[in-house]
Amino acid sequence: MTAASRRRIPEATVARLPLYYRALMETGERQVATISSERLAELAGVNAAKVRKDLSYLGSYGTRGVGYDVEYLLHEISRELGLTRDWPVAIVGIGNLGRALANYRGFGARGFRVEVLIDADPALVGHRIGELAVVSIDDLDEVVREHSIAIGILATPASAAQDVADRLVAAGVTSILNFAPAVCSVPEGVSMRKVDLAIELQILSFYQLRRATSGATPPRERAG
Amino acid sequence: MTAASRRRIPEATVARLPLYYRALMETGERQVATISSERLAELAGVNAAKVRKDLSYLGSYGTRGVGYDVEYLLHEISRELGLTRDWPVAIVGIGNLGRALANYRGFGARGFRVEVLIDADPALVGHRIGELAVVSIDDLDEVVREHSIAIGILATPASAAQDVADRLVAAGVTSILNFAPAVCSVPEGVSMRKVDLAIELQILSFYQLRRATSGATPPRERAG
Repeated sequence: MTAASRRRIPEATVARLPLYYRALMETGERQVATISSERLAELAGVNAAKVRKDLSYLGSYGTRGVGYDVEYLLHEISRELGLTRDWPVAIVGIGNLGRALANYRGFGARGFRVEVLIDADPALVGHRIGELAVVSIDDLDEVVREHSIAIGILATPASAAQDVADRLVAAGVTSILNFAPAVCSVPEGVSMRKVDLAIELQILSFYQLRRATSGATPPRERAG
Repeated sequence: MTAASRRRIPEATVARLPLYYRALMETGERQVATISSERLAELAGVNAAKVRKDLSYLGSYGTRGVGYDVEYLLHEISRELGLTRDWPVAIVGIGNLGRALANYRGFGARGFRVEVLIDADPALVGHRIGELAVVSIDDLDEVVREHSIAIGILATPASAAQDVADRLVAAGVTSILNFAPAVCSVPEGVSMRKVDLAIELQILSFYQLRRATSGATPPRERAG
């Protein structure tokens, strides 16, 4: 019985837990034993009241005047997020993005083991990326079942995304991370999250525009 | 004078505007003229009251029983986010991720023109990716100024990230998108956003864990 099955945690809180986790990891690397909700809020880019509320769902309340124990909180969050488990991952679409994801350090460290690389291009099949050989899309069903793949990552062109999503679901995958610039649908009971690499650029652009129109001399000119 | 300089929009609202923009683009492609706050909320993954509150900061209130005009709202949000401007972008670090970003369709369509590719590897300098030739990091300052680069994308290894961020800032860049798995700091007046490709995986893992421990037969077994 895990914490996740006991309590109901709002979706927005779930989405912030990885931000706290990352902030705490960075703090932990700096050998800090405790952290205040204010500091954690600052590192995660939210407000302190929200941090306290979010962490209360995990049963973590911190100690007045001391804050939260970093190690304990890291343990709580990683258990809640399922990072203490091993999730076998398959990447479909081994173009530049698929290769970048296959080599991405941040996955393995958090329990996401990339075990299968799949592509439709016969010229790529058998090609090695790190320790893995690319498998043909014709064998998708077989390798996904064989490796008990929990999470599929779509890094295909937009035109192939829905078809690949359907095949992953048919093979038993219940979580899909979609990097393809396409709207895909999945049946009830399957989770899909979309990563749009331009989202963060748009947030930067908002602040860039604000600076450009604020009348202040931009750093560009001051530095020149 | 733009909308951004007139009103104060909360940071959390700014971060949600790109989600609304994407949802509306997808709706617009399907030739829908109006959209309810409930539908927009569903597409963007937030609740309807939040959508109405967020859009009220833009002066958009919708029409009772009709909803929001999709085209007008798209225009409002893209103006607010600065997507009606052209932001020249430089990518530093032309490994797999840098190449994937250089070829990413979603950037150009939203006003983010990748104009400069920079790498430290002499073997890569002069190499063409699409229409651009990779420039040496030794020429960073010169090309960044020459192209009036507004946004720098860090796709370097972790060890090089802070140094490259410093050089971009010294050359006048005031917005940095950091894909490197490293904590970087930038001076006041410069925006930096970090993209962590494992964040979404962790959210999927939360729901995967919940399904695995809910006692329901997972689809994997039902399909087999």
